[in-house]
Amino acid sequence: MSPDTISSAPAAHAPAYARLAARFARIGTLNECGAILHWDASVTMPPGGAPARGEHMAALAGLAHEMLVAPDASELLDAAEAEAAAGRLDPWQARNLALMRHQWRHASALPADLVEAQARAHAACEAAWRVARPASDFAAVRPLLAEVVRLQGEAAAARGAALGIAPYDALLDSFERGVTEAMIGPIFARYQEFLAEALPAILERQASAPAPLPLPGPFPVAAQEAFVRALVAGMGFDFDHGRLDISAHPFCGGIPSDVRITTRYDEADIAQALMGVLHETGHALYERGLPAAWARQPVGAAAGMAAHESQSLIVEMQASRSDAFLSWLGPRLHASFGGAAEPYAPANLARAWRRVAPGFIRVDADEVTYPAHIILRYRLERALIAGELAVADLPGAWNEGFRALLGLAVPDDRRGCLQDIHWYDGAFGYFPSYTLGAMAAAQMFAAATAAVPEIVPALGRGEFAPLIGWLRAHVHARGSREDLQGMLKQATGAPLDPARFIAHLRQRYLGGA
Amino acid sequence: MSPDTISSAPAAHAPAYARLAARFARIGTLNECGAILHWDASVTMPPGGAPARGEHMAALAGLAHEMLVAPDASELLDAAEAEAAAGRLDPWQARNLALMRHQWRHASALPADLVEAQARAHAACEAAWRVARPASDFAAVRPLLAEVVRLQGEAAAARGAALGIAPYDALLDSFERGVTEAMIGPIFARYQEFLAEALPAILERQASAPAPLPLPGPFPVAAQEAFVRALVAGMGFDFDHGRLDISAHPFCGGIPSDVRITTRYDEADIAQALMGVLHETGHALYERGLPAAWARQPVGAAAGMAAHESQSLIVEMQASRSDAFLSWLGPRLHASFGGAAEPYAPANLARAWRRVAPGFIRVDADEVTYPAHIILRYRLERALIAGELAVADLPGAWNEGFRALLGLAVPDDRRGCLQDIHWYDGAFGYFPSYTLGAMAAAQMFAAATAAVPEIVPALGRGEFAPLIGWLRAHVHARGSREDLQGMLKQATGAPLDPARFIAHLRQRYLGGA
Repeated sequence: MSPDTISSAPAAHAPAYARLAARFARIGTLNECGAILHWDASVTMPPGGAPARGEHMAALAGLAHEMLVAPDASELLDAAEAEAAAGRLDPWQARNLALMRHQWRHASALPADLVEAQARAHAACEAAWRVARPASDFAAVRPLLAEVVRLQGEAAAARGAALGIAPYDALLDSFERGVTEAMIGPIFARYQEFLAEALPAILERQASAPAPLPLPGPFPVAAQEAFVRALVAGMGFDFDHGRLDISAHPFCGGIPSDVRITTRYDEADIAQALMGVLHETGHALYERGLPAAWARQPVGAAAGMAAHESQSLIVEMQASRSDAFLSWLGPRLHASFGGAAEPYAPANLARAWRRVAPGFIRVDADEVTYPAHIILRYRLERALIAGELAVADLPGAWNEGFRALLGLAVPDDRRGCLQDIHWYDGAFGYFPSYTLGAMAAAQMFAAATAAVPEIVPALGRGEFAPLIGWLRAHVHARGSREDLQGMLKQATGAPLDPARFIAHLRQRYLGGA
Repeated sequence: MSPDTISSAPAAHAPAYARLAARFARIGTLNECGAILHWDASVTMPPGGAPARGEHMAALAGLAHEMLVAPDASELLDAAEAEAAAGRLDPWQARNLALMRHQWRHASALPADLVEAQARAHAACEAAWRVARPASDFAAVRPLLAEVVRLQGEAAAARGAALGIAPYDALLDSFERGVTEAMIGPIFARYQEFLAEALPAILERQASAPAPLPLPGPFPVAAQEAFVRALVAGMGFDFDHGRLDISAHPFCGGIPSDVRITTRYDEADIAQALMGVLHETGHALYERGLPAAWARQPVGAAAGMAAHESQSLIVEMQASRSDAFLSWLGPRLHASFGGAAEPYAPANLARAWRRVAPGFIRVDADEVTYPAHIILRYRLERALIAGELAVADLPGAWNEGFRALLGLAVPDDRRGCLQDIHWYDGAFGYFPSYTLGAMAAAQMFAAATAAVPEIVPALGRGEFAPLIGWLRAHVHARGSREDLQGMLKQATGAPLDPARFIAHLRQRYLGGA
């Protein structure tokens, strides 16, 4: 085995590192408990369990934090870094140690009472949001969100001071290491230029083509579920190590050996569950493919949220909406759900499921306008954290920004600033990951199909194995061996370049590069 | 409010007690996390999640143990006891402190590595048992059970030494404080005498009566579930604070604000789910009725396992199989499931559901022969812990003991020593609780119906409220304010007396006292 092969040998000659590895294994175990309890809270918990669950999550987060910033941690990290400098760690161990230091810098910036207060505030705000969203009642959740934002601001300032970076960059870094406003700014500016130029042309071209025929339906829930279960099992989702359930807000949760995806079913529209499950399956295959020898260690975790989104979007957007896969999928859907054959023709599915339509809801957005939703959230959350925007003014600022970006008047907060769980659950600095992930997915798909010409023909036979095989080797099995940019350089030969994504969109929606 | 009213006032003038209360709240929170994760492992977890779940349970148990036996715990307990002696604690706080000391004595007897080794061994053995039981393959689980027993023996010796009692008494005490072989021995001997004398007479009397007509069935699972859901909701099971699911081994889990019961459905036999759910509902109502002001504190917990079983059995055996309730239930079942009316006549339901039939399976046993199953397990587990019986000899000893007690030859280990999860999950000293609970239930029902004459007529209208009201006041809301014997004295005027249970059986099965 080369020195760069995955290692799990005991570090007997690196005792400080070995002690840290044992401690991080325990932290990782508490985080896994939290992951399963979070899934339970979203899928199975009765409403009356919410207050106690808030206590559970706060206690687990508080304990993990205490272990991370234990009084001897700094000394142990110093000693382990000396062991690394003396060449006693292999490259995986050395990287693991660097990530421990990075986590420690983040965590030691925050006092334990702030961590617990955040966990409690997020649980309370999320629970209120679950009621406020369907009622479009922003006022009901506003004070709880204000408390979340206030605590986020404290945390951002503290993290930024500890890392020597700007507060909002520190929040970005906590979701995707190394990502900064300086990196995002030009990428998003470039995309805005493209959108301003290309969106009218795309809509015009689309309008000149035949309108998509609606799929006949209805699609009974049990039949949809059977279809998507068989589909994802064929893609490699292992139900001995995973579940598929229903939740209001689809997500991928659980842990690598027990990865749990959720979806929603709409009897009138199979695309919601079908494409949603394909998306979450991309996340799930990443989790299942992480290096098991490094389970619960920092280097064994996914590289970050943009990296994670690249895996869901390469499955959902790049592969599953390709002409090749739709040509395989259409006849199978028709065989399962019956009705007229014409709507299931691949060209019609492409018109239906690659339709560009500016709208209010991020999770329903097409891949062309989706980045506009992200750019809006990115601007607003920066302003909230900087104290330039009050929570009370959020609905107005949202609606104004939305009109400027996509030309639409938001009718109510349910379809505006209440639509996403993220802020209400305390995730600030997270939204840019979606668009960075979409761009990384396009870049990876281009590199993968160039390296493995079999990928696209296999999709035409409903087979994902060649694509997943490339992802296993270049992304999944590397865990956090590299950050996003390093992973992209290793896998595609270049750092993140929005030109790959833009080329993909031009190809798909304007018929050329 | 009297000084004996439930108190949750801050103990500002008792700082050592207040620090202990905060620490026990955190321990209680970790235990609650474990309770939900245990439910998940039994109900929703895919099989591949088991190894990681073992790590989760071990880490939570290990952390709770570390907190309980922290270096300053002994000193804090001493200081708080001085506060109590100075009259600074109210009676609930003083009892809470005594229970903290009791838990500390148990826990400080065990080194943390033994606690973690037990959690891991139990998880591994239980997982193997889930495969071994249906295959009747004792050999497959034998080495894992031997390890469980070896660790139990270590734990019993250490607990016994710390508490100054015999090892097996220390295991009994860990499930039901204060219960000893010296208390159980005469009670079980008295019951054996009764059984030897009464069982032939009961069987003879039963044989001379008409055979029960079978309920026609089939009972579709969905209809059964709807029926039992409506039934337990009417009894006060609050689905905003609880769930009803399916699991292989029915149980009541979760936490007081999120209490989760499970059952199994058999389309040919509604009694299994119906009586099983009534049983678990008795447990659940106890958990929900615990004093919320003392949540996560020792005094806020159920008094013990026998006390818990008394609550399930008073609902299932005393109330739900009473003539009064069956006269209400029969017509409702007939209306829901149809077919001939005659089998649903109360007298026929009584013959069907109060049938005495010596058999192999404890959980299917009638209330007359059930204690024989317990007496067998009690003898065998005492011998296993004392090292007088080797795990390899367990199947033989089981079969021999079973023949001596109930005169039946056990055909295979699936219907013998593999039938119950308890030992394989590390519960030794637990089985006697079932029969102590059955006896306590009879004693409580007699006291309750004497004090509240409305209880039985209300059951005849399908109303449990008068009975549950009595239990709320005398059992549920008192948490661990008393041990089993103290609770019985407080609620019924006397300590546990098997004569009450025997009188109940004579009345029900021999038609007189």
